Amino acid sequence: MVEMRILFLGTSAAVPTATRGLSSAVIIRGGELLIFDTGEGMQQNFIRSGLGINKKLKIFITHMHADHCLGALGLLQTLSLLGRETPVEIFGPPRFAEFMKTNVNILSFGLIFEVRISSIRSEGVVVKERDYSVSCCEAHHIFPTYAFCLSEHERAGIFDIDETKRLGIPEGSLYKKLQSGEDITYDGKRILSTWVTGPKRPGRKVGFSSDTRPTDRLRKFFQNCDLLVFDSTYSHEQWQKAKDRLHSTATEAAILAQAAGVKKLLLTHFSARYADTAQLVKEAKAFHNNVEAAQDMRFVEIPYPDI
Amino acid sequence: MVEMRILFLGTSAAVPTATRGLSSAVIIRGGELLIFDTGEGMQQNFIRSGLGINKKLKIFITHMHADHCLGALGLLQTLSLLGRETPVEIFGPPRFAEFMKTNVNILSFGLIFEVRISSIRSEGVVVKERDYSVSCCEAHHIFPTYAFCLSEHERAGIFDIDETKRLGIPEGSLYKKLQSGEDITYDGKRILSTWVTGPKRPGRKVGFSSDTRPTDRLRKFFQNCDLLVFDSTYSHEQWQKAKDRLHSTATEAAILAQAAGVKKLLLTHFSARYADTAQLVKEAKAFHNNVEAAQDMRFVEIPYPDI
Repeated sequence: MVEMRILFLGTSAAVPTATRGLSSAVIIRGGELLIFDTGEGMQQNFIRSGLGINKKLKIFITHMHADHCLGALGLLQTLSLLGRETPVEIFGPPRFAEFMKTNVNILSFGLIFEVRISSIRSEGVVVKERDYSVSCCEAHHIFPTYAFCLSEHERAGIFDIDETKRLGIPEGSLYKKLQSGEDITYDGKRILSTWVTGPKRPGRKVGFSSDTRPTDRLRKFFQNCDLLVFDSTYSHEQWQKAKDRLHSTATEAAILAQAAGVKKLLLTHFSARYADTAQLVKEAKAFHNNVEAAQDMRFVEIPYPDI
Repeated sequence: MVEMRILFLGTSAAVPTATRGLSSAVIIRGGELLIFDTGEGMQQNFIRSGLGINKKLKIFITHMHADHCLGALGLLQTLSLLGRETPVEIFGPPRFAEFMKTNVNILSFGLIFEVRISSIRSEGVVVKERDYSVSCCEAHHIFPTYAFCLSEHERAGIFDIDETKRLGIPEGSLYKKLQSGEDITYDGKRILSTWVTGPKRPGRKVGFSSDTRPTDRLRKFFQNCDLLVFDSTYSHEQWQKAKDRLHSTATEAAILAQAAGVKKLLLTHFSARYADTAQLVKEAKAFHNNVEAAQDMRFVEIPYPDI
C-alpha cells in the first residue's frame, strides 16, 4: 500500500484571483512528489504546504503559457536557497529547456542541485518507475500541449497468512518474497507465491488534462481513471468562449469523464469570473455522479479502486 | 494636496513564507501607481489590492534577482488579459529589457498595450514629471543594483482667501492661478501671486534602498526622506551574514536612517527565519524613534512634512 494524495497549489485560469493561485498541483505518492504545472507564484503555496524540500521530485509542464510554467524558476531557486541536495527531474515541451537555460543565465541562478530536463517531443511513456509510469497525450490547445496520466502497476494480491503458516513457512523474509509474487524453496520444497496470494490487484490511475478542448483522444487516454483533473475554465453558458479559446466547460469535462468511466472528477483552472465554483460543480453533476471543484491548498485522497 | 500611500505587495527576502510574498511595493500617488520591484507572484496581491488595471503605471526594477523582477512578466500578462489600454513604463537594469524580450518570445505573450522599457545605466534622474521626479543611486549588492527616491517638487504656499477677496478678485479661475504661483492682471492691475500666498511648502521624499549594505552614498541619497523603506534582511545578531550576502541588519537600517534625518523608517525584505518581525523593529528603535515593519497588504500613509 502506498498512500497517494493530491494537493492543489493553484486553480485559477490565466490570472490569479484573491483566493486562487495559478495552475499547479502536486501528487504526494509515498515519499515522492510529482508536480503538474508550475504557475507563477506556486512556490508560496508549496512552502505553506510544508511538503519538504528534499523529497524525490518530478515536475511535469503541460505547455509554455506563463500561468503554467513560470513558477518553475522561483521554485527551483527557492529549493536551492533552502539547501536541497537531490536532483529534480523536469519533463516538458522543448521550449521549456530554452526557457530555463535563458533565465538561469539572465537571472544568475545559483542552483546547487542537478536539474535534469527531458523534452517531450511525442506521445507515450515519459517516466517508468518500479511501480508506476507517467505517460502523455496531445491535448487540443493554442500551444503544443500535453495531458498526463500517472498509472500504477498492478499490486500483489491479498496475502493469506493462515495458509502460509499451514505450509510451515517461518515468518520473516520468506513471507515478504511470497507476498510480493516471488516463488521460494523452503526445506527442499518449492512453494509458489500464487498458492498464498490472491489475484493481482489494480493500481491507481490519475489524469491531468491541462488546458484543452475535450477530444476523443483524451477520452481514450483517461479511460478508467480513478481520479481525473480536467480543464473547467467556463460554465457551459460560455461554451462559445471555451471553443474560441480552446478550453473546456464544466459540462464538457463531466461528459468526457463519464464516457471514459472516470471514478472521480476534479474540476480546475477556473476563470476569474467565477468567484464561487458551485455552479460549475452543479452543471457537471448532471453528467457525472462524483464531481468536486479543486481548491487551493486542499488535499484530496486517492484511494485504491478495490478498497 | 495629492494623497500618497504605500502598499507592500511582498516583504520577504529571497524565498516567500506562508505570510510574506517576494519583494514588491506600490506607491499610490493621486491617480498614479509606482511599483518598486516585482518579485514573483506579486500580481496576486496586486489583484487583491483592487488598485485597478488602467491607472498610469511606472515600474522600477532595482536589480535582476528573480525575487525582485520575475513577477513583472505575470503582472504585464494579467494586465493585458484584463484589458489594460494605457502604456506601462518600466525603468530597470539593461538586462531587464533582454529578460522581457526573451520571455515575451518564449512564452508567446500577447501584450495589448505598449510597454516602454528604459534601461538605467548610471545614477541620476530617471523620471521627471510635472510635480515630482524619481532618481536613482547605486546600492551595494551582488548584482548591479539601484536604490530609488521619489521627490515631490515644492508645493504652492498657503493661499490667503481673505486677502484675495480684499483685493477685489472674483472667485474662480483667477484664484486658481494665483494659488498655483501665477501672477495675474485684473481690472488693469497687476496682482502678484506672492501677495496672496505664503512661502512655498516642501514636497515629500520617499526612498527605497532595495537589497544593499548601508553606504555613505545611500545615506546622502536618502537625506531628509519623509519615508524610507530599507533592506532589513537580518537582525544584528546575523551581522556577519548580512555582510557576506551584501544585505543590511535592522540596526544598520536604523543607524543610516537616523544619520540621514529620515522621518519614518519602514523595515522590509525579511529573512524567512523571522516569523515575527517585532525583534527587528525593537533593535532598530534603539537608533531611530519612528520605525515600523512593512507587512504584506498593509497600507502606510505618507503625509506632507508640514501637516
